[in-house]
Amino acid sequence: MVGISRCRDSTLEQVYDGRHRAGIVEPISGITAATIQEWREKIMLSSHTLKTGKEGCYDITSAVRDAIRKSGTVAGLCIVYCPHTTAGVTINENADPDVVKDLLYGLDKAFPDRTEFRHAEGNSAAHLKTSCIGSSVTIIVENGSPILGTWQGVYFCEFDGPRERKYHIKVIG
Amino acid sequence: MVGISRCRDSTLEQVYDGRHRAGIVEPISGITAATIQEWREKIMLSSHTLKTGKEGCYDITSAVRDAIRKSGTVAGLCIVYCPHTTAGVTINENADPDVVKDLLYGLDKAFPDRTEFRHAEGNSAAHLKTSCIGSSVTIIVENGSPILGTWQGVYFCEFDGPRERKYHIKVIG
Amino acid sequence: MVGISRCRDSTLEQVYDGRHRAGIVEPISGITAATIQEWREKIMLSSHTLKTGKEGCYDITSAVRDAIRKSGTVAGLCIVYCPHTTAGVTINENADPDVVKDLLYGLDKAFPDRTEFRHAEGNSAAHLKTSCIGSSVTIIVENGSPILGTWQGVYFCEFDGPRERKYHIKVIG
Repeated sequence: MVGISRCRDSTLEQVYDGRHRAGIVEPISGITAATIQEWREKIMLSSHTLKTGKEGCYDITSAVRDAIRKSGTVAGLCIVYCPHTTAGVTINENADPDVVKDLLYGLDKAFPDRTEFRHAEGNSAAHLKTSCIGSSVTIIVENGSPILGTWQGVYFCEFDGPRERKYHIKVIG
Repeated sequence: MVGISRCRDSTLEQVYDGRHRAGIVEPISGITAATIQEWREKIMLSSHTLKTGKEGCYDITSAVRDAIRKSGTVAGLCIVYCPHTTAGVTINENADPDVVKDLLYGLDKAFPDRTEFRHAEGNSAAHLKTSCIGSSVTIIVENGSPILGTWQGVYFCEFDGPRERKYHIKVIG
Repeated sequence: MVGISRCRDSTLEQVYDGRHRAGIVEPISGITAATIQEWREKIMLSSHTLKTGKEGCYDITSAVRDAIRKSGTVAGLCIVYCPHTTAGVTINENADPDVVKDLLYGLDKAFPDRTEFRHAEGNSAAHLKTSCIGSSVTIIVENGSPILGTWQGVYFCEFDGPRERKYHIKVIG
């Protein structure tokens, strides 16, 4: 018998995940409906880590696709959220890597460091870029996949690294 | 008898839509609950096309209102999503058309084309504007309508036209 | 007996809120399930007012936390929405107040007033800043609280005050 305390076990999650994808919906013996609900909600929110360089756009599209698949959500929304104030999330071209390099270059020209800035830490330009780019993106989920355009990828944008960063992926549906 | 294969028929959608708005909730003969669910989810996600000029902000507010009404959603959220990487979606003034003209002019000044850009296609400025403006907007739905401010309209922003463009409207509730 | 007409009474809301937080889920005598549903949806959308100065970022994080707690939502999303076209909402550092001052300064440098602007009201720069910053933020709710990073606060950004402003908080889950 498997109790609530074991529901956070990752092996079990994989079992659940496998059964779920196989279309088996009846509860595993010893696990109540409430537990499965709690468990499913946990799967629908995942946290990810990323080691960044000084500045850069990191393609996290495959992590987004995986989180949606694992949640078992057929139709709904997916939110990718950055909990930092000198890094953001955006959607842009995934084909030519020069596009995100130009993105960082152009942001630096529009929001350069300025002698008039008062923030003692000296990274006000990174805070500015963060509010311009935004702390999250919202993606539509349909048929169990994100509806992204042909050339769209999801990028974590580091404006003040190198750091160990986090981002969250939430799926609802 | 109407089968699943006919559920995507637009005339039938209108029948469903009319019944739905009239408060008739029992299934139409020959259509299962699962079919209606699938059907309703389809209505809650709609794709729209737009022929754009070189650059411009196109008011798509009425399409947003229509999609919300058709979904039958009383309270929830509406996401307007742009699947392109040189076009975005924003909310701004719907009264004086000069506002969105000034918006495009000011974006062009903040994010001009630069000789240092490496992207061979030559439209990096359009990619920059897209990440600044954003690929989607989220609107609150209440009493079956979007809660927009008096002067707010929803705009599709073309930064690298002319093109045939798409946008998606998703309603959840 | 308490009828539907009294359900919008704020004292009653507090009673409901208190019962809800205490884990009492059975309906109060005389109130139908439909009423409670209507009531709960009302609690899940709240409107707030703010008197602003000429320009400024106002920390509204505690109002966001309160709205989420009051909604009783354990896991879901929270949308903070600004219904104006010369004011926006952003997430940025809540520790050093100089950060949001630098944010306003840097936005003013990137999007200054320009003689070429045509909008007769003369506040096109404020409209530009609004579309750059955005009209809403989306926050993930988990364990009844917003998942904000250590240094993150939610800010209402006034770009063309002083005015009496509104913002809406919607919680879904």
